Parts: sequence; C-alpha cells; structure tokens
Amino acid sequence: MSSAYVPGLEGIVAAQTEISMVDGANGRLVYQGYVIADLAEQMSFEEVAYLLWKGGLPTHAELDALALELGSSRTLTQAATITLDALPKDTDPMDVLRSVVSVQGVEHKLQKPSVPLAIHATASFPTILALFHRRQLGLAPVKPRADLGHAANYLYMLNGKESSPEHVHALNTYLVLLADHGMNASTFTARVIASTDSDLASCLVGAIGALKGPAHGGAPSQVMDQLEKIGTADNAERWLREARKQKVRFMGFGHRVYRTYDPRARILKEMCARLNPKFYELASKVEETALQILHEEHPERPQATNVEFYSAGVLQAIGLPKEFFPPTFAVARVAGWSAHVLEQSANNRLIRPQSEYVGPEPRKPVPLAERG
Amino acid sequence: MSSAYVPGLEGIVAAQTEISMVDGANGRLVYQGYVIADLAEQMSFEEVAYLLWKGGLPTHAELDALALELGSSRTLTQAATITLDALPKDTDPMDVLRSVVSVQGVEHKLQKPSVPLAIHATASFPTILALFHRRQLGLAPVKPRADLGHAANYLYMLNGKESSPEHVHALNTYLVLLADHGMNASTFTARVIASTDSDLASCLVGAIGALKGPAHGGAPSQVMDQLEKIGTADNAERWLREARKQKVRFMGFGHRVYRTYDPRARILKEMCARLNPKFYELASKVEETALQILHEEHPERPQATNVEFYSAGVLQAIGLPKEFFPPTFAVARVAGWSAHVLEQSANNRLIRPQSEYVGPEPRKPVPLAERG
Repeated sequence: MSSAYVPGLEGIVAAQTEISMVDGANGRLVYQGYVIADLAEQMSFEEVAYLLWKGGLPTHAELDALALELGSSRTLTQAATITLDALPKDTDPMDVLRSVVSVQGVEHKLQKPSVPLAIHATASFPTILALFHRRQLGLAPVKPRADLGHAANYLYMLNGKESSPEHVHALNTYLVLLADHGMNASTFTARVIASTDSDLASCLVGAIGALKGPAHGGAPSQVMDQLEKIGTADNAERWLREARKQKVRFMGFGHRVYRTYDPRARILKEMCARLNPKFYELASKVEETALQILHEEHPERPQATNVEFYSAGVLQAIGLPKEFFPPTFAVARVAGWSAHVLEQSANNRLIRPQSEYVGPEPRKPVPLAERG
Repeated sequence: MSSAYVPGLEGIVAAQTEISMVDGANGRLVYQGYVIADLAEQMSFEEVAYLLWKGGLPTHAELDALALELGSSRTLTQAATITLDALPKDTDPMDVLRSVVSVQGVEHKLQKPSVPLAIHATASFPTILALFHRRQLGLAPVKPRADLGHAANYLYMLNGKESSPEHVHALNTYLVLLADHGMNASTFTARVIASTDSDLASCLVGAIGALKGPAHGGAPSQVMDQLEKIGTADNAERWLREARKQKVRFMGFGHRVYRTYDPRARILKEMCARLNPKFYELASKVEETALQILHEEHPERPQATNVEFYSAGVLQAIGLPKEFFPPTFAVARVAGWSAHVLEQSANNRLIRPQSEYVGPEPRKPVPLAERG
C-alpha cells in the first residue's frame, strides 16, 4: 500500500516466462531457447506454435497430429457464422475478430485453458478473417482445406485459389516472426484475464481488444498510409522533414526494448526486397531518411526501425489489404497469447495491482433536492 | 530490466485515480469523495454513474439529461440482436454479454472513449441480459421502457412487468454498491486495453472476460450453490466443519484489502434480512459459523465476509436466477469500468510491464528431418 506509482508499469516484472525473451541489448528474440533467426525461414508456423505451447519442437508424428487437428478445426460454429454474416460490411476486421472469436468460444464455457483449446482457437482466426474479407467483396465463401498448412490455407480462403509457394513461405515466415514477443500489452491483457481463472476465449478476446489500439498493433496499416502520402523515393526527404516540423510521428519506428536493429525487421526487410521491390525502393529510402532525421534529433538513441515497417511491404506483396494487417498480426500472435494463458493458468495467482486515490477528501453529499 | 518479479503485482501501484478508494484499514469505500454508506440507499444508479464519469454529482437538469440519454440507448443494433438470437440457449450469460457487447460496439470503431459512449454501453447491458433470459425461458422479448429508471427497466425487461418499489430500490442499491471498487482485475484489464488507445467496447469486452473468472466475479453464484448444499441453519456447523476437513473453500469470504467488515456486505446484509428472511436465516448462521471456524484457524486474520455473500440473497430476492448474478455484477461495474477507461485515456501511457525469461538458454534447433 505504501508503494509508489509506476507509470505504465515500466520496468516492473509481472511474469516469469519460458515462452520468449526479448533480448533488447543484443537484438535477439528467443522462443523457448531458440533464436528467431534460426526459426524464421526454416520452421512452419505449426512447428513454432507447438514449440510455444509445449516447450519443445515436435517430432514428425507430433507435427502430423497437430496439422490434422488444426486442419479439422477450421470451421466456425453456427452461431459464429451467423454473427459474422450479421456484421456490417464496413466493420473494422479487428472488431470482426473480437466478436466472432467471442461467439466461437461460448461452447467451451469455463473449461480450463488447454492445448486442444488453443489449437481450436488458432485454427479459427484465418477462417474468420477470410470469410469476412470475401463477404466485403461480395464473393462466395471458400471452404477451408484440411490438406493445406496454416499459412497456405489462410491465403487459399482469402483468394479462392492456392498462392505461390513463395507467397506461402513469406506469410509463414511473417507468422513465425510475430508469434510471440515477451510481455507486450495484449499478452499482458491475456495473462491478467487468465489470472482470474477465466476461459481461453475471454483471454483472447481481451488480447484482440488491446492489439486493436494504435499504440500496440495498429501501426502497420499506418505505415502504409504514410508511405502512400510520401509517394516516391525522391519525395521522401522533403516530406519527412516537413512532417517533422509539424510534429508528425514517423510510423514504423521506435521500440521500448531493442537497443539495436529489431531482428524481425531485418528478416522482413530482406523478404521485402525480394517480394515487393516497388515498396522496397520507397520504403528503404524512407527508412534511411527517417533514421537520419531521428539521429539528428536524438543522436543518443539507437536504430529504431520496428517490425511494423517492413511487415507492411510483405503483407502487401502477398495480397492482403491494409485493413487486414492488424488482424493478421493476431493470426500470428494467437499462438503466443494462448501459450501465455496456458503458462499463467498452470501456476496461477490473481494479477491485482493497487491504485492510488488522488480524488477529493471524503465529504457529505448534497441531496438532489438541494443541488438545483 | 533489473527489477525483481512481483507475483500478482501485489502492492504495485498501477494507476492514480480520482474515481474510487478502497480504504481497507477503515472499512470504507469512497467514490469521488463520497463514502459508499452515504450514497448507497439515497442515490440512484444514474446519479452515481454520473459521479463516476464526471467527478461530481449531477444537478436536476443534468440528471434528467442523463436519464433521457440512457433511456433512448436501450435498444440493440441489428447485428447485436441477430448475434444474441444465434447463441445457444445454454450459453453462459457472461459469454452472452461478452459477445453481444462486442458486436454492439462495432459501429463505434476506433472512436476515442467518451461519456456518450459510456452511456450507450451502460444502457445496453440490461437489455442484452433480459432479452437472453427471456429467450432461454421461451418467452417473448420485452421492449425497454424509456420512462423507467435503470434498475426498474432491467427488472421490467426481465419479468415483463414492473417490479415493486422495494425490489427496484434493492437492485438500485446493489448497482450503486458494486459500481466501482478501485483497481480490481477487471478494471485493471480495461485500463490496460485503454492504454493502447483502443476503443471502449474492446476495454469492456476484456473486463467482462476477467470478471467471468471464478477468482474475480464468479463467486456469488457459488455462494448460492454452497448454501443450497448446506440446506438448513441446523446443518451449517456440521457441513462447514466437514467441508473444511476436505479443504473445501468457503464461498463469499476473504478479500485482499479490507481489514474490517466490507462496508458493502454490511448494507447488503441488512437488505437481505428485510427482503429475503429465509435466505437470511440460513446465511447469517452460515456466516457466523464460517467466521468462527476461520477465526479458529487464523485468529490473526480480520472478519472476512465479502460482498458476494449477501449479494446472492439480495439478487435472489428480486427474482434473478443465480446464473445472472455475475453478469448483473457487470451491469453495475460497467459504470466504473468506463469511468476508468475515460480517466486512463485522458492522460494515457501504454501499460507494458516486463517479463523475466526463465526458459532454456539459446541453442541451435534440430531440423525436423533429424527429429524422428
């Protein structure tokens, strides 16, 4: 009760976790003892989800069993389908995900979070988004295909045809890179909800709500907006310097933790150069200039390109509209969220900090009749 | 980064707030400078919601304007109505609330939280629950009545007829008592989500998910379950002593903060004696015996009857089924949740604690082909 207020809980350790480590000083992200650079382009999202949930990489047989279970959990309940079809066509896809994940979860009531429930939820995210995307476009829904991997099936359901192996690989790498990231605001939300012994769907719905916030997961589509405004590489320096005078924030830069280049941004940047050369030409010039300006302003601060900056180019290259960048972040992060919920509920304790009252001293209320 | 892990964030101050103070040492709950005992039986829920949102009690004209706006916001959107009707009849009412509040909120997209949005959300909670309750019973839906107060309209929509002034007053008092309570887990969830600049519906949906947890808002219906098992006052001592031997937890006792009798429990206990003498006879004997046993085990601990214990008797007396106790808690607490969201977003900073990695040291992954 005598503790001091800690704004933003900065520096406070709220959980011990085996799931991931953001090693900001060395520019490393580690999942259960594996460095992200060793996982990103070699592993399937399914392998990494297994790793996050179970703490070790799967054998062939374990991976096959997971793929089978994911593949058979890609349909929505009747109530979830009706809800999805009832939402206005201009609904924010994050709100679609929040609402339909909530309805999809009701059948599990207060069941204790488990790996099968995590699989069930993870399988549903791409289905929800793809069905809504096609509905927005007035296209017929596409049934999921159990024979396709997680990334391939998502693209198949969005587009109604199989994507190139290059695009599937790119989406898979994106999903692996974004699957977990220590104690960010949405993961923390999921753990706080889990700490009340609530169910997995409640935790995920809260996490989606937190990820929707522009200060957390809303940035990738804003990166795209800013690049569209800049238009061409030649215009970058003029636009950015003018923007800075007007205190406009550069989207896709800055991170609380990394003191060196974000390892995920490095991998996405290379992919972007291969997959989306037009975006890359503009974006790399904008990055160079933005970092130069930021360095002039704050020479003491480290390089700061964050994961959202080149995510935008990769997701655009594989055909996703920018409104689907934040919920596709959720398609990846649901693996991490559910792993954290499992870890929290395995060794639970209610997360309940204090508040400090700074309101008026207690006094007698004036009755309504005398208040005028 | 060098901080120590704080399990449950116990004792950490996560927010400064003018909204409420839980003064555990003196057994006081204060809303914006007014002691709960001075508000509980004199003020309408509408006055108290206004107080929490705006920081002062309303004038006659302000209260009339609020009542008008609440009264005209009691209908659901088409999408929310369709969702509600699509949910299986055995859905947990907390999941109904989580899902339909999410859908009801989609029209507001990423609007900044505001008092009008708080009013809009607060008005919808009783409608959602009453419509679902009647659907479960196979009864026709009852349209909201704009001329009734918040508590009276909730009972009217549940039952299809006006309740007695005594029952309306009891529900109103319950709603005032439960409207806010410092930094509990659901309010904290709402503030974490708000801290990402997300929208009010996202914050409320997360808070409902947290309140669903038995360690937070799930207790009142468990109180009822336990009293049903005990059956009669004569059986209380035998049952409780036997239960204790088997390490069964007494429901409705214990609180992290109050060192003396919970002021809300005191008021609810008196109401219970008047409104529900049969429940009171059993419950007061169970309370006396349970406190005696708890005192024998831990003489150093204070009296510990919490707000859930006599809530159960009051809510039963006014005709609510026990599955509707937790979501009726939410009908009250949405006022506090939204007040905290407004306060958080007025002076925002991302709430993002750290985690401490306790997983394996980084090593090279074995490729799938070599994993067997």
